[in-house]
Amino acid sequence: MADLTGADVRRSALTGADVTGADVTGADVTGADVTGVDVAGWSCPMPLRDYPRIVLGHGGGGTLSAELVEHLFLPAFAAAGTVPPCPDTTLAPPGRGSAAPDTDPASVDAAVVEVGGARLAFTTDSYVVRPLFFPGGSIGELAVHGTVNDLACRGARPVALSCGFILEEGLELAVLDRVARAMGAAAASCGVRLVTGDTKVVERGRCDGLYVNTSGIGLVPAGVDVRPGRVRPGDRIVLSGPIGEHGIAVLSVREGLEFGGDDVRSDTAPLHGLVAAMLAASTTGVHAIRDPTRGGLATALVEIAAAAGVGVEFTESAVPVPPAVEAACGFLGLDPLHVANEGRLVAFVADADTDTVLAAMRAHPAGTGATVIGTVTAGHPGLVAARTAFGSTRVVDRPLGEHLPRIC
Amino acid sequence: MADLTGADVRRSALTGADVTGADVTGADVTGADVTGVDVAGWSCPMPLRDYPRIVLGHGGGGTLSAELVEHLFLPAFAAAGTVPPCPDTTLAPPGRGSAAPDTDPASVDAAVVEVGGARLAFTTDSYVVRPLFFPGGSIGELAVHGTVNDLACRGARPVALSCGFILEEGLELAVLDRVARAMGAAAASCGVRLVTGDTKVVERGRCDGLYVNTSGIGLVPAGVDVRPGRVRPGDRIVLSGPIGEHGIAVLSVREGLEFGGDDVRSDTAPLHGLVAAMLAASTTGVHAIRDPTRGGLATALVEIAAAAGVGVEFTESAVPVPPAVEAACGFLGLDPLHVANEGRLVAFVADADTDTVLAAMRAHPAGTGATVIGTVTAGHPGLVAARTAFGSTRVVDRPLGEHLPRIC
Repeated sequence: MADLTGADVRRSALTGADVTGADVTGADVTGADVTGVDVAGWSCPMPLRDYPRIVLGHGGGGTLSAELVEHLFLPAFAAAGTVPPCPDTTLAPPGRGSAAPDTDPASVDAAVVEVGGARLAFTTDSYVVRPLFFPGGSIGELAVHGTVNDLACRGARPVALSCGFILEEGLELAVLDRVARAMGAAAASCGVRLVTGDTKVVERGRCDGLYVNTSGIGLVPAGVDVRPGRVRPGDRIVLSGPIGEHGIAVLSVREGLEFGGDDVRSDTAPLHGLVAAMLAASTTGVHAIRDPTRGGLATALVEIAAAAGVGVEFTESAVPVPPAVEAACGFLGLDPLHVANEGRLVAFVADADTDTVLAAMRAHPAGTGATVIGTVTAGHPGLVAARTAFGSTRVVDRPLGEHLPRIC
Repeated sequence: MADLTGADVRRSALTGADVTGADVTGADVTGADVTGVDVAGWSCPMPLRDYPRIVLGHGGGGTLSAELVEHLFLPAFAAAGTVPPCPDTTLAPPGRGSAAPDTDPASVDAAVVEVGGARLAFTTDSYVVRPLFFPGGSIGELAVHGTVNDLACRGARPVALSCGFILEEGLELAVLDRVARAMGAAAASCGVRLVTGDTKVVERGRCDGLYVNTSGIGLVPAGVDVRPGRVRPGDRIVLSGPIGEHGIAVLSVREGLEFGGDDVRSDTAPLHGLVAAMLAASTTGVHAIRDPTRGGLATALVEIAAAAGVGVEFTESAVPVPPAVEAACGFLGLDPLHVANEGRLVAFVADADTDTVLAAMRAHPAGTGATVIGTVTAGHPGLVAARTAFGSTRVVDRPLGEHLPRIC
């Protein structure tokens, strides 16, 4: 099979599923030269699911990622009563093994385990963003904020992080130093410590400069119980600020594009302070929190709807999208709902507590743009519906695979 | 500068420092074809240290790794009161940041942090071993055992692991499945749970099949305090079994070599059960434990001698080296003391407790080959001396860089 590099094939606007990497047809997707692609050979998106090799979409946080978890990792780990690796998701079958697992079968972002009487949140993420530096941040800030935010989404107070570097032979030490300083500064500003680490080096051409994994542990305060299983019909859906900036910022510098005259900067930021303020306003009224990273807001809403067995309805026009993000998405055929964020959260809050929580969010620097975007319903469980500007309703799904490979 | 691939340059037998990757001279080291190498251009090992790029030796767990930690990560992380990533080493400056750090400035293998009243061990390791499967195991077992063992070396009972995969586009799902099943089975046999995970996919040529990071948390039982700082002159040094099998097993399959007629199989195995048996025999007499992985037994002894400010003396002939490992090392010019192990530990035990602890080790399946190899002295602090078969004494140092790149 010919290896046709440089084919950017996007043909599934109807489903919102862009296919950005598909060895199945012999088409690689970095770059944008379509010369020589046998488009007739494509029948996306279905064949990807049956293809016996990893495609970029398996890392996108969408449907393919979920299938990888369900059909490969979950069975493989079943013997240990363990949990699959899944983008920003932790699935812990209850009651087996030596640790007390979270009882929610589809908890998000971090697992909660009881150790020595303490309720610990525990999470991991690897960061492979390309390029390493982008407007508003770098892989260093991302690696700290992303893992801190995963802990925060369980209501935990972040305590300590690990960092594991994989370095490519030939990487400039000055680049590594810049990344490490960004991590140190970000950790300091979050009040967390990088307490343990590891460094591996691989041969030139076996990495892309550097990858870094951060894992984190946090303490879940007494009385705090934030997870999808607590979401109930009637809950209000609160978004902490405008969406799409991280994904577009990375894309713009990667592809050398400018959108709408404004530089779009990544929104990368820690959210644990905001979460603490929300929980201080209402410890029990904050039912679930999710940071909509890979797969964007759409994926966060779909996964919580599915996990909680509820319907989600929101108003498209209520979701703040910066003009430059909107312009870029229009140009690129992307749905802002699918674009990654690294400093936003979406919360599901008891109706009676929404005003209090919203006020607390707006009073916090990370939540000045907080706004109610929708409501949880008992109807259409597992489905997310958006009321459009035209007054119609459309079903919102997560992307099949990967809009923007290596966005985090 | 010419990029001369395939140059295997070993010229530092006197210092025990093999240079297996050195862009500084334009020589890459995978393979063994020396054609075209400008040997006059080499002046190892010093220039490597000043070279502004990452070389394979930075990941070897030896002197270059330590320099990277000391000169790059430690300053970069200092702002956060944090800790550098270091191969199997955790350096936690005491008393800063939000988590209670381990008070030992050069604790090994895992950090100990107090969270919610519990003493937690926390560690991370990335695994990049090549090939993925080797006699006696795979990257899957390694990723579980390695992290479990790092926890065990602090006396902790392993509780939960995370796993973060970085996958190369095009990886066969069957390969991933085999690795995941190995991880699941290994975790089950260790009684630990894989509770949270993450998957990233990078483009073809930006990885080597798959890399995996596992981080782990464990509970340090009351009264247990295992760290280099407790090592005292007079302590006996106990090795749990023969050395060198993991490194030689990986090397043999990688290079297609056979040594001594016997297949050498990796010793990869969990050690937490053995450690628990040792601590049950003497909770306070077991001062420090280290698993001699990258850099081998020599590195473990040197690092503990330096951290504890003591001297180490051992008898070379007391260190069990399987005949096939000895044959391979002779053939390849390697020192068995520098070759990686993945199922062995070296313990520093109070003299009065040594017989009891040794008996407990020999009664455990992972410690049947346990033996006393040496003694801690007040003389020559920071130095490790070996009594040779000829009756002389030689100073043992850790390797400068990387004997065997990507051994774990």
